[in-house]
Amino acid sequence: MKKRPISLRSKLYRIIFEAETTSGRLFDILLLVLILASVTVVALETVVYLRRSHLALFYKLEWAFTILFTIEYLLRIYSSPKPLKYIFSFFGLVDLISIIPTYISLFIVGAQYLLVVRVLRLLRIARIFKLTHFINEGQVLSRALKASLTKIFVFLGTVLLAVVIIGSLMYMVEGAASGFTSIPKSIYWTIVTLTTVGYGDIAPVTPLGQILASCVMILGYGIIAVPTGIVTVEMSKTDRSMTNTKVCPNCHKEGHVPNASFCYNCGWELNNHNL
Amino acid sequence: MKKRPISLRSKLYRIIFEAETTSGRLFDILLLVLILASVTVVALETVVYLRRSHLALFYKLEWAFTILFTIEYLLRIYSSPKPLKYIFSFFGLVDLISIIPTYISLFIVGAQYLLVVRVLRLLRIARIFKLTHFINEGQVLSRALKASLTKIFVFLGTVLLAVVIIGSLMYMVEGAASGFTSIPKSIYWTIVTLTTVGYGDIAPVTPLGQILASCVMILGYGIIAVPTGIVTVEMSKTDRSMTNTKVCPNCHKEGHVPNASFCYNCGWELNNHNL
Amino acid sequence: MKKRPISLRSKLYRIIFEAETTSGRLFDILLLVLILASVTVVALETVVYLRRSHLALFYKLEWAFTILFTIEYLLRIYSSPKPLKYIFSFFGLVDLISIIPTYISLFIVGAQYLLVVRVLRLLRIARIFKLTHFINEGQVLSRALKASLTKIFVFLGTVLLAVVIIGSLMYMVEGAASGFTSIPKSIYWTIVTLTTVGYGDIAPVTPLGQILASCVMILGYGIIAVPTGIVTVEMSKTDRSMTNTKVCPNCHKEGHVPNASFCYNCGWELNNHNL
Amino acid sequence: MKKRPISLRSKLYRIIFEAETTSGRLFDILLLVLILASVTVVALETVVYLRRSHLALFYKLEWAFTILFTIEYLLRIYSSPKPLKYIFSFFGLVDLISIIPTYISLFIVGAQYLLVVRVLRLLRIARIFKLTHFINEGQVLSRALKASLTKIFVFLGTVLLAVVIIGSLMYMVEGAASGFTSIPKSIYWTIVTLTTVGYGDIAPVTPLGQILASCVMILGYGIIAVPTGIVTVEMSKTDRSMTNTKVCPNCHKEGHVPNASFCYNCGWELNNHNL
Repeated sequence: MKKRPISLRSKLYRIIFEAETTSGRLFDILLLVLILASVTVVALETVVYLRRSHLALFYKLEWAFTILFTIEYLLRIYSSPKPLKYIFSFFGLVDLISIIPTYISLFIVGAQYLLVVRVLRLLRIARIFKLTHFINEGQVLSRALKASLTKIFVFLGTVLLAVVIIGSLMYMVEGAASGFTSIPKSIYWTIVTLTTVGYGDIAPVTPLGQILASCVMILGYGIIAVPTGIVTVEMSKTDRSMTNTKVCPNCHKEGHVPNASFCYNCGWELNNHNL
Repeated sequence: MKKRPISLRSKLYRIIFEAETTSGRLFDILLLVLILASVTVVALETVVYLRRSHLALFYKLEWAFTILFTIEYLLRIYSSPKPLKYIFSFFGLVDLISIIPTYISLFIVGAQYLLVVRVLRLLRIARIFKLTHFINEGQVLSRALKASLTKIFVFLGTVLLAVVIIGSLMYMVEGAASGFTSIPKSIYWTIVTLTTVGYGDIAPVTPLGQILASCVMILGYGIIAVPTGIVTVEMSKTDRSMTNTKVCPNCHKEGHVPNASFCYNCGWELNNHNL
Repeated sequence: MKKRPISLRSKLYRIIFEAETTSGRLFDILLLVLILASVTVVALETVVYLRRSHLALFYKLEWAFTILFTIEYLLRIYSSPKPLKYIFSFFGLVDLISIIPTYISLFIVGAQYLLVVRVLRLLRIARIFKLTHFINEGQVLSRALKASLTKIFVFLGTVLLAVVIIGSLMYMVEGAASGFTSIPKSIYWTIVTLTTVGYGDIAPVTPLGQILASCVMILGYGIIAVPTGIVTVEMSKTDRSMTNTKVCPNCHKEGHVPNASFCYNCGWELNNHNL
Repeated sequence: MKKRPISLRSKLYRIIFEAETTSGRLFDILLLVLILASVTVVALETVVYLRRSHLALFYKLEWAFTILFTIEYLLRIYSSPKPLKYIFSFFGLVDLISIIPTYISLFIVGAQYLLVVRVLRLLRIARIFKLTHFINEGQVLSRALKASLTKIFVFLGTVLLAVVIIGSLMYMVEGAASGFTSIPKSIYWTIVTLTTVGYGDIAPVTPLGQILASCVMILGYGIIAVPTGIVTVEMSKTDRSMTNTKVCPNCHKEGHVPNASFCYNCGWELNNHNL
């Protein structure tokens, strides 16, 4: 890439939007730290005894972060070649939502807790890792999950049907005295049990209820195998197809080891371009 | 498909039982909405403060749904070419059970909660997705689960033996003071623990009981690998045999190995075009 | 099998020890029912309100089962060609332990609860399924588990090291006030948490403790993947090697579909002996 | 190995640092027992009623172990050919940390609980199993885990983002009255729920909170499939490449595909004997 004299605007663009230059990467790391600090401040502010003792500090920090992010937002609009496209992009909206709540909190108390959406901005930071193998790994994951999605929906649909029926049964068996005060609450209990979370805030007390609950637990314990099986099979396929698409130009065999220089079948030299 | 003048009865059949025409699909979607609404009403009716404030509304809605479903049921009988076969089919019985409880509730209080069986009617709606790939995905799942069933039964049998023995041991170790009031209750606790649900309504308090409980937890944590392994292996096999849809042109068998040149069944040479 | 006149003893042997004749299978099924009934009686006897109201009935049933099993035990010894070998075999000992507690309970109160070991006798009933495919499935499972055992021990060893260290840390962080009254109890809590059981009888209350607990949970949630991965890989290998050991005698290719009559590679007819 | 007269120092080295001679192995087993005993003593000392009744015994045992380990540490330094290298190695530091707390506890009460780090010394004992297949199994595991690490980090990162957002939502939905007293505490609850631990010390009570919690549970129940899938796929690959131990006679590369005829690295023809 040859260096040419560039305008302030495109210089800013390079720093703010890209991560290929040193200053661009520095900016991203600084932003990463600011976002984490800002989200931590929002979270800690909700702790009663901290809020009481450091009210002024939290107030100042919150405004400091908001003003910094507002400046950043304006700079992004300024430096962007197509400002409107940026404003209405996913990240543009996240950036906006990350600063608005503080201004709203001047009028509505409590709105500042919405600031935790700032954590979404971290997604942007994935860019720092762009040049590493993180992207590739992420792709394997997301492809496999996409391929599993239909199967998992079919599975979840069946599970939800079962949950509604079991929940209603438990309501009739246990009744309000055991905490199963309504069918929706029973359904909630069924989900808590089937997913093996098991809070214990509601638990069956009658023998019949406990037998039924045992069946639900064993069911839940068993069917966790289904999504796991789905994802494993898809991940195995994705992994194979992504690491291993080389074909021998001589004998047309596939399935070479990732860094193969020669065909395992005919000994032909492989042009090792794609890895 | 050439259009011919058709009787009202077969027109109704097409709309009610099939989902290939626009009106048929509309009917199914309407039914889907009605079933969901009806199940929601039954569920919400059990919430005490909602029942108190909206008693009349719930009563009216329940009867409205019941009358609608009764009309639908009668239309199904009328339009069906073999009414008896429909009535005693799985869905015919579900349809009947979906309307009876309301009529019974005139005589027996509480019977209307049985109406949640209406949720089973949603299974019929799977038909809407018939033309999509949902069916195929569902088949992969159900085939793999069927193939895993024997192995899972052997596994569950062994686990249940262990549960009975561990449950009795815990009863002797912990005793009634810790909540292990009887062997059946101890068995219930063992299932709660082994499946990693862990309500905490009963928990060991003696050192020996806690050591034993730790073993049960580690066991439960470990053996979840078994059903998962079973299902994953079967799913992987099913997936391979289903995505590999080559059919022998001579004997029409499916399920050839990916790079097959000859049919495994009749020895016919396969035109290996699709790989 | 040609029928020859056989002695009473070998007739009895056939009925009691084998399951190939109709009477032998009938005997096994009867025994299955008796064992299940007997274990159920022992379990129900521990339920306080049942014991109070049906004391005499339980007493009679317990003695009835014990006398029946004693007769069976004596018959086994009588009909066995090598009685001593039977007596000291695994099942011989289980059979003996299944009747002794009742006799001991004449002298020591509570000993009858040991009768639940009768449930081990059910293992013998596996014989009924001998001719079915249950045995084969069971073998796939047990072979895969045996092959996984060393890996799982290495894994469990590492986990136990971690559990001891984390448990001690939590003891120092949380202290007795939160229920972490000693290091052994903290280790118990760590196991409860790591295996995602989570009773909630002990739970961290300090911020630092909750952060540490969060790490333990995420660790436990993640490392469940390890035994699952181990078992799945072994199961997949066992499954492949058991279903698929046929080799084409012409081209020596492996990997034929289970019921193949012809080689997929060269079309050679396979002698289908081993399936 | 031919025997030569050796100095006391190198004799000691062989006994203390190696496990190939009988005395070396005996030393290791003795050390194993001492470490386990010492850690058990530290753990039991924290149990209140045991400490009260056996204070003097615990005190004596602790000092006995410490003096033994101090002697061992000094011997290790003496016999080591490069003492400084040993002192600053991982195990050298662990050995030092394993004895210091007792001496510190003379000045600072409670410091002796740090002695549980002694459990780390058990890692050294892995050497006893050096000649067995444990090492190999451990390698399969650790290689597979290393290969999975990047994918698991990407996964964990995404999960943590979700946990922060869900935690904040739950704080706003449930509020302090239900125990969700702050965002950090809500995040703690989200982790407890997502990992299906479910203590029940904090549980949602409002309908909206319970609906949201249900979603978190189903999410947690589903995404456990992801690390499991990652590890299984990697483990399957590692297992295949390790069990397939063919080495190219020309370039000495390993990891050929199962039916390879030519080396993937140098193209040398492989004598395909072992398949």
